[in-house]
Amino acid sequence: MVDYCIPLHGGNVHRAARARRVDVEKVLDFSANINPLGPSPLATEAIRSNLHMIRHYPDPDCTELREELAQYLQADVASVIVGNGGAEIIQMLAYVLRPQKALILSPTFSEYGRAVACAGGTVVRVPLRRDDGYSIDYDMVRANMDGVDMVWVCNPNNPTGTLLPRKAILELADIVARCGAALVVDEAFIDFVADSEEYSVRDEVQERRNLVVIGSLTKFFAIPGLRVGYAIAPEDLADRLRRQAPPWNVNFLAQVAAVASLQDTEYMGSTREFIARERSWLVRELEKLGAEVGVKVIPPSANFILLDMSESGLSSAKLCRRLSCSNILVRDCSNFPFLSENHVRIAVRSRPENERLLEALREVFGE
Amino acid sequence: MVDYCIPLHGGNVHRAARARRVDVEKVLDFSANINPLGPSPLATEAIRSNLHMIRHYPDPDCTELREELAQYLQADVASVIVGNGGAEIIQMLAYVLRPQKALILSPTFSEYGRAVACAGGTVVRVPLRRDDGYSIDYDMVRANMDGVDMVWVCNPNNPTGTLLPRKAILELADIVARCGAALVVDEAFIDFVADSEEYSVRDEVQERRNLVVIGSLTKFFAIPGLRVGYAIAPEDLADRLRRQAPPWNVNFLAQVAAVASLQDTEYMGSTREFIARERSWLVRELEKLGAEVGVKVIPPSANFILLDMSESGLSSAKLCRRLSCSNILVRDCSNFPFLSENHVRIAVRSRPENERLLEALREVFGE
Repeated sequence: MVDYCIPLHGGNVHRAARARRVDVEKVLDFSANINPLGPSPLATEAIRSNLHMIRHYPDPDCTELREELAQYLQADVASVIVGNGGAEIIQMLAYVLRPQKALILSPTFSEYGRAVACAGGTVVRVPLRRDDGYSIDYDMVRANMDGVDMVWVCNPNNPTGTLLPRKAILELADIVARCGAALVVDEAFIDFVADSEEYSVRDEVQERRNLVVIGSLTKFFAIPGLRVGYAIAPEDLADRLRRQAPPWNVNFLAQVAAVASLQDTEYMGSTREFIARERSWLVRELEKLGAEVGVKVIPPSANFILLDMSESGLSSAKLCRRLSCSNILVRDCSNFPFLSENHVRIAVRSRPENERLLEALREVFGE
Repeated sequence: MVDYCIPLHGGNVHRAARARRVDVEKVLDFSANINPLGPSPLATEAIRSNLHMIRHYPDPDCTELREELAQYLQADVASVIVGNGGAEIIQMLAYVLRPQKALILSPTFSEYGRAVACAGGTVVRVPLRRDDGYSIDYDMVRANMDGVDMVWVCNPNNPTGTLLPRKAILELADIVARCGAALVVDEAFIDFVADSEEYSVRDEVQERRNLVVIGSLTKFFAIPGLRVGYAIAPEDLADRLRRQAPPWNVNFLAQVAAVASLQDTEYMGSTREFIARERSWLVRELEKLGAEVGVKVIPPSANFILLDMSESGLSSAKLCRRLSCSNILVRDCSNFPFLSENHVRIAVRSRPENERLLEALREVFGE
């Protein structure tokens, strides 16, 4: 029997709505890190005008989407694979590379560990340096590489929201390569970062035989209901991944919506501007509130913010319960390794929504 | 390195359209076994009215869809799992049950063998008895069970179109159980069969610890672009399958369209009537043509028909090439084990489309 469990994720508005007996639209979801502008109008229009096509199988090769992605990522189309969400890509990597032992820089997204366990591997976790902006402790990585054949790192990291420079990731890649292991860098949130090319290592995939970069269209393009993730991998590995994926794994409407989204450069610009502005405002407001009640704001880089409420004495479970009475969801981070029971993650949303959250937080902390 | 290859499937209208430089709508696809009535209007309406919801993650538990399916299948909801198409369900079964050696009753759907190989197992194939309506040769199954821990059978069988009575499948299940192996019965096309309860073994899953039944909403409800498959498995196995699937594996629009489809009883009745009538007509016409040119029609039971052209001397590859000049796709079956290079499979479509096919066939054979 494999040692795994179903991790709790944010964004389960369906369960929340059922539990609260309200319409899904009444749930204010800060627990999923989704672009608050909603999907590109080009994406919804593409779905509408392709509805008659659901009677055909999707293109099993995702030809158009892979070409569009290759252009967007400035990658070779042969190195790009597409999956049914980033979650499927993560699982495919684990099943195809079959790690005996994976090292995961933590706290981070729980699916890496789950996928490795499902594929029969064991997991060793190396903590990111909290006191230094959740940076990598290279000595500790080196000290734990014995028997490790796969390393996972997320940048910007979920749930901490911290961002490591390209140089830091490449230094890790060198260490990992010297041990003959593979490095998977999950850049699912990098599109939210201004000047992302200073942080992304996707252009290094062709140079290095041991590097795979994962990405997602779900978060930035606000289409989590459709499921589209991708990876850039060395061509031979990309080929193996494609061959071992189930056929037709990317829904047809997801393919056309993704293609349309990637063509909406105006939307991309507006999103980055909107998130940068709104995130600054929300951080300032949270810091003001936090100074009074003992909540620390971890400096964010993407579209979500980690809050450490240790000094307030409030547990994340209690905060989540209290906010849910106002139909507000935030992400309880107590099940992340190396995070205490006083951490929550909140997404950056629209101004009126952020104001509603702040008001609800003030109420909870003011009691 | 795993021994596998990407099987060729029917239904690749996207590739055909690109190759022929025509619009996808100009391709007449007899190579995929899809309900020619198209999706239920309730399904397309459900997509339209839920488009605003793609900004949320899908319900990871597929709660509503599993409840609707349980009712439709008269199964316990705890035993029902849903996947991103039948293909994902097949792959999940192979990865979770990890067969060392699988016995596959052949010719049949190629994904069983591919999934087993991807999961690291080997495959032994036992031929169905061509001279007896592709029935099961139990002695040959028994003689090949050494070391086998998993058996796959498809009913109605793809690509032969033949249907085995419930009793025949249960006799196989008994043999398989005595060897301590698991039996997977793929009933992806059973909804097209009148009196399907005389053939389905889905109600036996609770009684037998070694039986899993797979099904699909893709074919009968004409939504292959959306990807929805399911399995009915003993509860503990269903639970393991759910835990090892990637989260959010069923697209939100696929979930709502599937729920709506399952509520359209009128559509279900019309489909069965339409297919039965049109299939009889098409078989008669094909038999008339076949008697002249040496083509044998294998008596069908679902929505597709296997043709054996051995006596005509025409290869399936040549027929496919010739028909593709008229933008007509049929399924070349020469890559199925135990089928010669003279077999093609055609779907039952609407009367005008079937007439176009017949006309094109007459032209090819008349030359």
